Amino acid sequence: MSTPDIQLIDQAVAQAAATADAWAESSATVRAKLLRGLADALEQHQQALITLADEETGLGAGRLTGEVARTAFQLRGFADEVEAGVPFSRIDDQAIAGPPPAGRPRLTRVSQPLGPVAMFSASNFPFAFSVLGGDTASALAAGCPVVVKAHSGHPRLSRAVHEVAQGVLAEHGLPSGLLGLVEGASRAAGIHLVAHPQIAAVAFTGSYQGGTALWKVANERARPVPFFGELGSINPLLALPGILERDAENLAKTLAASITMGCGQFCTSPGVIIVFDHAASERFIELLSKALQPLTTHKMLTPSMRRGFDDGVARLDHATAARPLFQPHADGDGPAPRLFEIEAQAFIDDAHLREEIFGPAAVVIKVRSVDQAVSVFDAIGGTLTATLWGFEQDTDDTRTLLRAARSIAGRVLFSGVPTGVAVTHAQQHGGPWPASTQPQSTSVGYAALQRFLRPLALQDAPAWALSE
Amino acid sequence: MSTPDIQLIDQAVAQAAATADAWAESSATVRAKLLRGLADALEQHQQALITLADEETGLGAGRLTGEVARTAFQLRGFADEVEAGVPFSRIDDQAIAGPPPAGRPRLTRVSQPLGPVAMFSASNFPFAFSVLGGDTASALAAGCPVVVKAHSGHPRLSRAVHEVAQGVLAEHGLPSGLLGLVEGASRAAGIHLVAHPQIAAVAFTGSYQGGTALWKVANERARPVPFFGELGSINPLLALPGILERDAENLAKTLAASITMGCGQFCTSPGVIIVFDHAASERFIELLSKALQPLTTHKMLTPSMRRGFDDGVARLDHATAARPLFQPHADGDGPAPRLFEIEAQAFIDDAHLREEIFGPAAVVIKVRSVDQAVSVFDAIGGTLTATLWGFEQDTDDTRTLLRAARSIAGRVLFSGVPTGVAVTHAQQHGGPWPASTQPQSTSVGYAALQRFLRPLALQDAPAWALSE
Repeated sequence: MSTPDIQLIDQAVAQAAATADAWAESSATVRAKLLRGLADALEQHQQALITLADEETGLGAGRLTGEVARTAFQLRGFADEVEAGVPFSRIDDQAIAGPPPAGRPRLTRVSQPLGPVAMFSASNFPFAFSVLGGDTASALAAGCPVVVKAHSGHPRLSRAVHEVAQGVLAEHGLPSGLLGLVEGASRAAGIHLVAHPQIAAVAFTGSYQGGTALWKVANERARPVPFFGELGSINPLLALPGILERDAENLAKTLAASITMGCGQFCTSPGVIIVFDHAASERFIELLSKALQPLTTHKMLTPSMRRGFDDGVARLDHATAARPLFQPHADGDGPAPRLFEIEAQAFIDDAHLREEIFGPAAVVIKVRSVDQAVSVFDAIGGTLTATLWGFEQDTDDTRTLLRAARSIAGRVLFSGVPTGVAVTHAQQHGGPWPASTQPQSTSVGYAALQRFLRPLALQDAPAWALSE
Repeated sequence: MSTPDIQLIDQAVAQAAATADAWAESSATVRAKLLRGLADALEQHQQALITLADEETGLGAGRLTGEVARTAFQLRGFADEVEAGVPFSRIDDQAIAGPPPAGRPRLTRVSQPLGPVAMFSASNFPFAFSVLGGDTASALAAGCPVVVKAHSGHPRLSRAVHEVAQGVLAEHGLPSGLLGLVEGASRAAGIHLVAHPQIAAVAFTGSYQGGTALWKVANERARPVPFFGELGSINPLLALPGILERDAENLAKTLAASITMGCGQFCTSPGVIIVFDHAASERFIELLSKALQPLTTHKMLTPSMRRGFDDGVARLDHATAARPLFQPHADGDGPAPRLFEIEAQAFIDDAHLREEIFGPAAVVIKVRSVDQAVSVFDAIGGTLTATLWGFEQDTDDTRTLLRAARSIAGRVLFSGVPTGVAVTHAQQHGGPWPASTQPQSTSVGYAALQRFLRPLALQDAPAWALSE
């Protein structure tokens, strides 16, 4: 990493740190106005921004228009959270006279913003998980300044959105350091940012390799800080024979669309299809193969992601326990979709066969029993989502399978497909490792702002110390 | 570590894991009855248990009787939490028709118990942070089985309390594996327990060295798990000249008692006294020295803790930037109390001078300005508590100092001393590193049970999957 890069990172962090105290003490009104101002500005500039985003990512105007709408929606949603007082919530325990354990002083539990947040943009959501995405919105709502590490997949868009944001900050009379932007595709730049003593928390969405490397840096600091990383997920989907007997054709089409959506570049892309040894399953796999085989995809986000996809597919092409379920058509702009069957016990035994393949590919696992299905879930261990089709009835088997799915997932779906994550209060986007480095937190939904607050007890506080 | 030790650990974890599913699905009634049963049994057997505890720890019957009361109180408190539905709480977002971002499926946010918890007992609370202490109570309340690692400072007591607990489990028809006990003073035993693939979370209270070593083991697992460690705290106390002018004598006595309470073996023992360069401060330091010097202490909990204290004191005795404020009397059963003054800038610059000395010692820092006091807080960086005396008035200075205290502490006190931690809803016992490895959690107070739950979103769940 060059010295100028280091200096720019140090400068952005110093400027963010300089705004931290005032922003932590800013009112709900000021924060909500900023968040709404950012949403409005994003929409005002959307035409130019979407053009730029499409040039850099190839995701297409339709998808990108929807993503801007979602990004603005969640900025406004966090404004609502702030106005509802979430970051300012309190628990008050009045004093009780007398000796402990029943006797006690007065205690007031409040939330303390952590301080400057380093936020690593994702490649696959150039708006919703980038400069003004959910991490930034939730950190600002929580009272923390943000230093965004731009993703090298969309540098011009990052700069343009940052410029729009700077205009809004200036308009609101807020310091520019509240939202910094640093660039540099090198690992060293990311490491320098995470290791910076004035960074108080890290939010990361990206690859397992990149994420664990930065997570280790956060843990090796003289003073380790919370690292909220979302590192990958293979999102199993289990379909019972009953629903496949009733609705195989529709489900196959829906699933094929989900596997190829955005060229499979979603953290919730369904990567493992689990079915039981049954005629309905055989027919479903045929229909799925038929639906998936002809689909075409757009160009992948970056050359390295494409290499990663090709490597993952080659691994399965050469694995004795895996067999392709159809011959892929020739690649177009993006890779042809792929579907493999992997022998269940091999999948359970061999971690390499369970590695996420980021892109339009999935594997089918045929299980012989509920017990074996449970073993498949257990082997997966950690995932953002698990989808259970055909679970209308309460039986010993559905209970057992739900228990296994719950124990590994952050979200369990009983219909539909896991791609598409609603921004709501109940949403949970995170799960046991490696889905999240902090499975008790979420990066999507309004609970995301809790990542950047920590509880603080004030004991016998005078009135002035409790006023806002 | 011997093979039998490994086998016993593996056996305890396997037995805990075998109970995990059923306990995660147990009703509020069953959990609350168990917790109350444990509290009752502890009280029924308290005479014999306190005798045993005093033999092993020397903490004295008075203190130990109070500790049993607190332990029973918090077991019942967690029973109340369970009955109030805290681990079963839900957020329901109804479906909204239409396209995203406003349109959405039905989402229900529930809490998922993490699974078997490895709990490392503390030496200094043989009841309240040991076999049936707050970690065990909160984990059981959350729906998680517990494997207790007994502290080598009170092995017979640990066994006796565990036997009492086993009696209660049997009485309630619950499996003995719900609360396992493993022994072995070796580091290898602790490492084996934390690294065990069936352990889903770790709760630890103890030394910085031991805690960081185990925290690293948790992070180096194939699947890292949450590690809730409380690793040490130097608990600064800052007194403004005004209050020292008014009430120096009382405050000096109160503080001397807090420094020597339990031979200083509390995680919240006040270790750093910050005063301003002022005549009232000089007088207060004299009064504090006079109050502290003659006090005697009981024997420390273990020979290694005594060595740690002696080493820490020797470090300051030889430091050029530190000077003893009085000559200590001859040691009795426990060490003589010690008080040092450390030059403020040296304290800020040299991390060794800020190391916790676990035992009846404190250091005084005289600061020349509010800015320098802030630098002292910033240098401390992470602490369970910060105490602010004389902060009745809202001024620029009190605001600045409160801001600095809030940024490093989990609890800020405006009166009294930090020793003694009430078990309430608002309590927060944790703070930035090294006070806690997870500053967003607490090990004391009812929020402690949230450590052992993670959020889970159920999407479009059928009624049976939402029934309890």
